[in-house]
Amino acid sequence: PPCVDCAPTGGSVLSGTTLALPGMESGYPTVSVKGLFQVESAWFGQDAASTAAVGDIPDSTDFRRARLAATGHVAENVNYMIEFDFGFPGRPTFMDVYATVEDVSVLGNVRVGQWRQPFSMDALTSVKELMFLERSTAFTFFPFRQTGIGAFDTAFDEQATWAVSAFRYPVDQFGGSFGDSGYGLSTRLTGLLLEEGDDALVHAGFNFAHLQPSTHRFRFRSTPEIGFTAGDINGGPTVIPFFVDTGNIPAQSAQMLGTELAGQVGGVTLQSELMYAMVNQEGGPSLAFPAIYAQASYALTGERRSYNRKQGVFGRIVPHHNFGTGYSGAWEVAARWSWINLNDANIQGGELTDLTLGLNWYLNRYFKAQFNYIHAILSSPGAGDSGTDILAVRAQIDF
Amino acid sequence: PPCVDCAPTGGSVLSGTTLALPGMESGYPTVSVKGLFQVESAWFGQDAASTAAVGDIPDSTDFRRARLAATGHVAENVNYMIEFDFGFPGRPTFMDVYATVEDVSVLGNVRVGQWRQPFSMDALTSVKELMFLERSTAFTFFPFRQTGIGAFDTAFDEQATWAVSAFRYPVDQFGGSFGDSGYGLSTRLTGLLLEEGDDALVHAGFNFAHLQPSTHRFRFRSTPEIGFTAGDINGGPTVIPFFVDTGNIPAQSAQMLGTELAGQVGGVTLQSELMYAMVNQEGGPSLAFPAIYAQASYALTGERRSYNRKQGVFGRIVPHHNFGTGYSGAWEVAARWSWINLNDANIQGGELTDLTLGLNWYLNRYFKAQFNYIHAILSSPGAGDSGTDILAVRAQIDF
Amino acid sequence: PPCVDCAPTGGSVLSGTTLALPGMESGYPTVSVKGLFQVESAWFGQDAASTAAVGDIPDSTDFRRARLAATGHVAENVNYMIEFDFGFPGRPTFMDVYATVEDVSVLGNVRVGQWRQPFSMDALTSVKELMFLERSTAFTFFPFRQTGIGAFDTAFDEQATWAVSAFRYPVDQFGGSFGDSGYGLSTRLTGLLLEEGDDALVHAGFNFAHLQPSTHRFRFRSTPEIGFTAGDINGGPTVIPFFVDTGNIPAQSAQMLGTELAGQVGGVTLQSELMYAMVNQEGGPSLAFPAIYAQASYALTGERRSYNRKQGVFGRIVPHHNFGTGYSGAWEVAARWSWINLNDANIQGGELTDLTLGLNWYLNRYFKAQFNYIHAILSSPGAGDSGTDILAVRAQIDF
Repeated sequence: PPCVDCAPTGGSVLSGTTLALPGMESGYPTVSVKGLFQVESAWFGQDAASTAAVGDIPDSTDFRRARLAATGHVAENVNYMIEFDFGFPGRPTFMDVYATVEDVSVLGNVRVGQWRQPFSMDALTSVKELMFLERSTAFTFFPFRQTGIGAFDTAFDEQATWAVSAFRYPVDQFGGSFGDSGYGLSTRLTGLLLEEGDDALVHAGFNFAHLQPSTHRFRFRSTPEIGFTAGDINGGPTVIPFFVDTGNIPAQSAQMLGTELAGQVGGVTLQSELMYAMVNQEGGPSLAFPAIYAQASYALTGERRSYNRKQGVFGRIVPHHNFGTGYSGAWEVAARWSWINLNDANIQGGELTDLTLGLNWYLNRYFKAQFNYIHAILSSPGAGDSGTDILAVRAQIDF
Repeated sequence: PPCVDCAPTGGSVLSGTTLALPGMESGYPTVSVKGLFQVESAWFGQDAASTAAVGDIPDSTDFRRARLAATGHVAENVNYMIEFDFGFPGRPTFMDVYATVEDVSVLGNVRVGQWRQPFSMDALTSVKELMFLERSTAFTFFPFRQTGIGAFDTAFDEQATWAVSAFRYPVDQFGGSFGDSGYGLSTRLTGLLLEEGDDALVHAGFNFAHLQPSTHRFRFRSTPEIGFTAGDINGGPTVIPFFVDTGNIPAQSAQMLGTELAGQVGGVTLQSELMYAMVNQEGGPSLAFPAIYAQASYALTGERRSYNRKQGVFGRIVPHHNFGTGYSGAWEVAARWSWINLNDANIQGGELTDLTLGLNWYLNRYFKAQFNYIHAILSSPGAGDSGTDILAVRAQIDF
Repeated sequence: PPCVDCAPTGGSVLSGTTLALPGMESGYPTVSVKGLFQVESAWFGQDAASTAAVGDIPDSTDFRRARLAATGHVAENVNYMIEFDFGFPGRPTFMDVYATVEDVSVLGNVRVGQWRQPFSMDALTSVKELMFLERSTAFTFFPFRQTGIGAFDTAFDEQATWAVSAFRYPVDQFGGSFGDSGYGLSTRLTGLLLEEGDDALVHAGFNFAHLQPSTHRFRFRSTPEIGFTAGDINGGPTVIPFFVDTGNIPAQSAQMLGTELAGQVGGVTLQSELMYAMVNQEGGPSLAFPAIYAQASYALTGERRSYNRKQGVFGRIVPHHNFGTGYSGAWEVAARWSWINLNDANIQGGELTDLTLGLNWYLNRYFKAQFNYIHAILSSPGAGDSGTDILAVRAQIDF
């Protein structure tokens, strides 16, 4: 038979988007190029106790994220995504790299590869649509991106979502995991408890993960919700120090528990989660670390965040009128309180409370500026109580 | 004259795909985005001699390959490809990065850049279309991707192909080669000895390469046809140890010889190659290392691999019916025997025989799962005879 | 509200190029994929003094640049570019990564991100359109790509351009800058002094930059306008040694001054610049280093370089007839003289004069070969006067 799908070595290369030869399913594969970048600057004000606890933090400018992705369908019922981040250490880093078979009976969607495993509303909200610059400090407990296989779907006419995954744990920056052990399980259930047209909406969710790391240890740590990194692939220092840090805890397994409560009333969007990391420490007592956050936002210009029924997360603000058309785009104010306690028994990783005020300016659907003022209250076992003030600004574009 | 092709610094950027201004050849350049990923897991069973010979091999999950490419034409007779792999160490690694002038008199196609140099049917078969997870152990003898200039074409009404290249040797992960020496020549000839419609086909090929490395040494080595790597750019350790390895052999030059015999009878596809690496060792006798493989596949669901006349290689299985349309896609069984002997005179690199059974499930033209069982029989000078059993599964999508 | 812009985790992903749902601005975002590569070889002839001064230089083949970019508009008045280079050390390196708001009152275009800051006609000429393989030795004085915010526009009916930027200085390969100091300012003004249809054109420009590096030091250095690099991210050695090099000069600030004079008469394109780097040295006298170049080109086949009014730079040669259509494309001859003196007071970085002859073969608008012969005359404080001859050839394709 003639060659209809040759390797690229010979002569002209067929177009991935327009190839349509006899005997092929017409129109596949499809491919869209997607990307984003976030460029930001942060300035730090530290009291003496803060400098003693975490050192002097340099004012910083960097690309927080810069991503390119190809995504599409290779058949009517199979989609894919290949996404890399060029801004993280270990560049480029594997982000969402997966294939999904849709419309499988009972299982709904079946996915293989690396993606954000089902755990936490904050984790599954796209970084393009975060209310603040960073996710809350509870992020350190999430499995997040791991390489495995999972299933997910909606239920009850898109009033609920469910997802369950099995994966290798933990994976490196390139989605790899090496060792005779190292597995994890994760699941998330969400539902709409109340929905009254555009007036009101109440979302609840439940998350559970069981993790057995190939490294036989856990380490939880967090910056005060600001995130520059300038280290190399081998784990060099980050620019922003970790304010709380358990150090390595020897353990064969841990369980993560999380609950979500969120909603919209009028134009106000509310979201909160409570997490527990329960570590079966070796050579010491079992440990439990809690984290919690609550956040709210309101668009001064009348827009409202969409609710994504397929994911059970909130989406972005889309301005009623774009900047440059005689209007100023959309303006949103936001506030968050978060708390994490990494002190338990022999582990004294510190306790951190963050208060964040945010102002988001959406010039159009795809371009925004974000301003965050963060007041971080750290209770550090070694250095006592301290205060750190952070002023940060980000420009983000995505397509 | 007005600017019709400005640098991107000023204002809006013209589209590479839609730019068509007076005086330009309409419709060029064209660009298609292409990519693929392979995510796989492998489990290893080793007898005591195997562990003694190569150490304990961890069960592994990783992205074996993850590639993005842009390809197209910049004029009716000039094509290009820029392809990077994000899964290899040295990330991202240069893959096919070349430009080709087509329809040149006598020379046919003239190519400059980096690409898979003409040597071996296995080498020139796309990784997207391999019968097994990896090419055979003979791979260690191929020049493979090098940076240079070459010509290639078909002949006798596409009954034959020829290709000849001159290149720098060896190049690093980024296509570079530095040193006052370091050159190579490579050529491949193939022909169809027999072709009876869809019933039968016999392909034969001949390959020759002359290599003068800038490093003044050769090293041949191979894993048992399973390939995880987690090393860094500077050549850190791979996860899967090399089962056979000559170590460095001081030499100014070597010649590689290879013959191909392949064909199709009914629905069965057969392919075999025999290689010789002949090294002009310095300070020791001349060396000759042989490698050979033979493989066959058969699609249980009635499909047949295409034969690519422009390349002289086999293509992929395209299911008669896709998975998810009431059918299960295509299923193919395959088997391979391979043998390499890196023992000669003072060099005792070991001898490896691999037996592989494969089961390939093609959900559609672009998405497949592959299952390999490999039994590796290693005769190691230091540790004697050993057996290793490998079970591996891969999901691959390409577009 | 329904989800019209979900995260990619759920089911099919909307196309960045074709998404058009009720309530959205139709047709945005747009995305074009662009790229280029330059593969080149260089051979070096050194007299004894050259070898003594800079060591033996290996003949080299490498991809000088290999870039992929996504660019487009996310709204009628907002464009973006995300571009990475895979050929530089620190791979992939951030190139132009920015968003621009167009048609802002008074300011014209306002840009945020990383791009080539306004300083020097040579700097702002795209690498795709350079007359020679490399920019002149004056390049070491340019701010070039930095991360910041700036404004630019044309004036007087595109008879003039202006640009001004504020940025962090210096940024690393990924656009980041860390430290409580480290800022810069840069500005460029250009104008057409004379324009007589296609017959004659005179361009003049003025550049000024004020730089306060976070590193509290400056270092200027240059190869003889040939540029291979094979170092790693941490600043490993380049293949081509720096012929002139000031070493680190402790300083809180420096000012850069530059003037441009360029034009076209008949088919000849002329371009020259004079630069001064004035360093406020700490613990020593103030320093001033000059650099100058003048270059000219002429297309034997009758074409002329375009003049880009939006940028104030020259564009590329577009052949009247492409290679392969019975014609040979376009042929251009070029010559350049450049001089840089890095000797002043206690700093003895050397003095370098370069004479370059160029021959450029444009097969079509997007594919060319360039041949450079460079004679470098180095006056090195340690090793006296020396001569180096360089022969280099490059193939370049862009789209």
